[in-house]
Amino acid sequence: MRETILDRLKAMGIELSEPAKPVASYVGFVRQGDLVYVSGQLPFVDGRLSATGLLGRDVSIEEGAAAARHCAINLINQVHAACEGDLERVTRCIRLGGFVASTPDFTDHPKVINGASDLIGAVFGDKGAHARAAVGVAALPLNAAVEVEGLFAIR
Amino acid sequence: MRETILDRLKAMGIELSEPAKPVASYVGFVRQGDLVYVSGQLPFVDGRLSATGLLGRDVSIEEGAAAARHCAINLINQVHAACEGDLERVTRCIRLGGFVASTPDFTDHPKVINGASDLIGAVFGDKGAHARAAVGVAALPLNAAVEVEGLFAIR
Amino acid sequence: MRETILDRLKAMGIELSEPAKPVASYVGFVRQGDLVYVSGQLPFVDGRLSATGLLGRDVSIEEGAAAARHCAINLINQVHAACEGDLERVTRCIRLGGFVASTPDFTDHPKVINGASDLIGAVFGDKGAHARAAVGVAALPLNAAVEVEGLFAIR
Repeated sequence: MRETILDRLKAMGIELSEPAKPVASYVGFVRQGDLVYVSGQLPFVDGRLSATGLLGRDVSIEEGAAAARHCAINLINQVHAACEGDLERVTRCIRLGGFVASTPDFTDHPKVINGASDLIGAVFGDKGAHARAAVGVAALPLNAAVEVEGLFAIR
Repeated sequence: MRETILDRLKAMGIELSEPAKPVASYVGFVRQGDLVYVSGQLPFVDGRLSATGLLGRDVSIEEGAAAARHCAINLINQVHAACEGDLERVTRCIRLGGFVASTPDFTDHPKVINGASDLIGAVFGDKGAHARAAVGVAALPLNAAVEVEGLFAIR
Repeated sequence: MRETILDRLKAMGIELSEPAKPVASYVGFVRQGDLVYVSGQLPFVDGRLSATGLLGRDVSIEEGAAAARHCAINLINQVHAACEGDLERVTRCIRLGGFVASTPDFTDHPKVINGASDLIGAVFGDKGAHARAAVGVAALPLNAAVEVEGLFAIR
């Protein structure tokens, strides 16, 4: 029997949950035709941010990469909702936008955002190969260390 | 009679104007199929920026949110031009990208960008529910405090 | 005989090369229907970054604009690969996202990113007129001074 994406998530110890509800006039995702635009996700784990502060001062590369992975899990939660619970409908992760809160002298943003990219690759296989931009920003909402937004194609 | 988007803008005291012309090899918006990609808008009001400097140092949250609202009005000006004057052709605001010039310790970026999101929601109703990313950047063009770009679907 | 895009690149002294291979679970570009999403490009020239550090401290506007131009050449390299070597298939540069590593008091980000926009305009003509966002970020991967991502339509 073919391994499903849910099988893969389970084998990785990742449980999906109800996606976080935004608190303003915006939504977690918008579906437009076969595209799903997912809002920037913070590294919430059980309602708490897994890493706060700046890379290069408060947060190590390893902690940052773990936080980016948490952002990616939250992206998948949103896509799961967009697919009405059937992640097999995902045909491609098209793009990730990765924002790393960092000091001006931090230069390892790719290693941080790889935490998200590697998870998406592990979960979606060939369909997870995405374009991306990774940049270092001055600060992020709620003092989060990482934020990742995503664009997915579904059928 | 059904209330139009122009009615709503008028009731809110918002007058549309000719969208600002960019000064380089780029344009205010690009229409591609039924999508309209709008360039990052600064909080220009009558040719002057409504807020300059950094959130967390020079600009209060309230001033920042008002500036984000001005960016959203300028987005609507661009979409108005893309729709050849008929905003009823807008079927969805798909995504806003919100950039807040901020100090490294500022963390209320969502409250600032809500100034844009709330206006889009008030003007477009259900069609205004959008995905978004809000981040804190080091600085913005012309020392603007906020910049917002947008993606809209039209028919 | 009609001048091709390759003719124009040649006249400008720009040689295309194999696009840089990303080093993680992401790719240089993703084609989705008639759209090509290109990953954020750094100003690599012959394997070395043409400008590192911050605008407003380490890098002049002229150097930054030259670096943005290098990013645009690397975008074109990716699109060249996406078009299987036939740049005449490009129907539009839809959007550029320009990130400038800058100090909090730098305000000339548009002049920097114009280095990319002007090149795209010179190469693609009317098809090069794009939407864009230009912002100042805290830092960029590998200490690059500029990063530019792009969205293109092809046939």
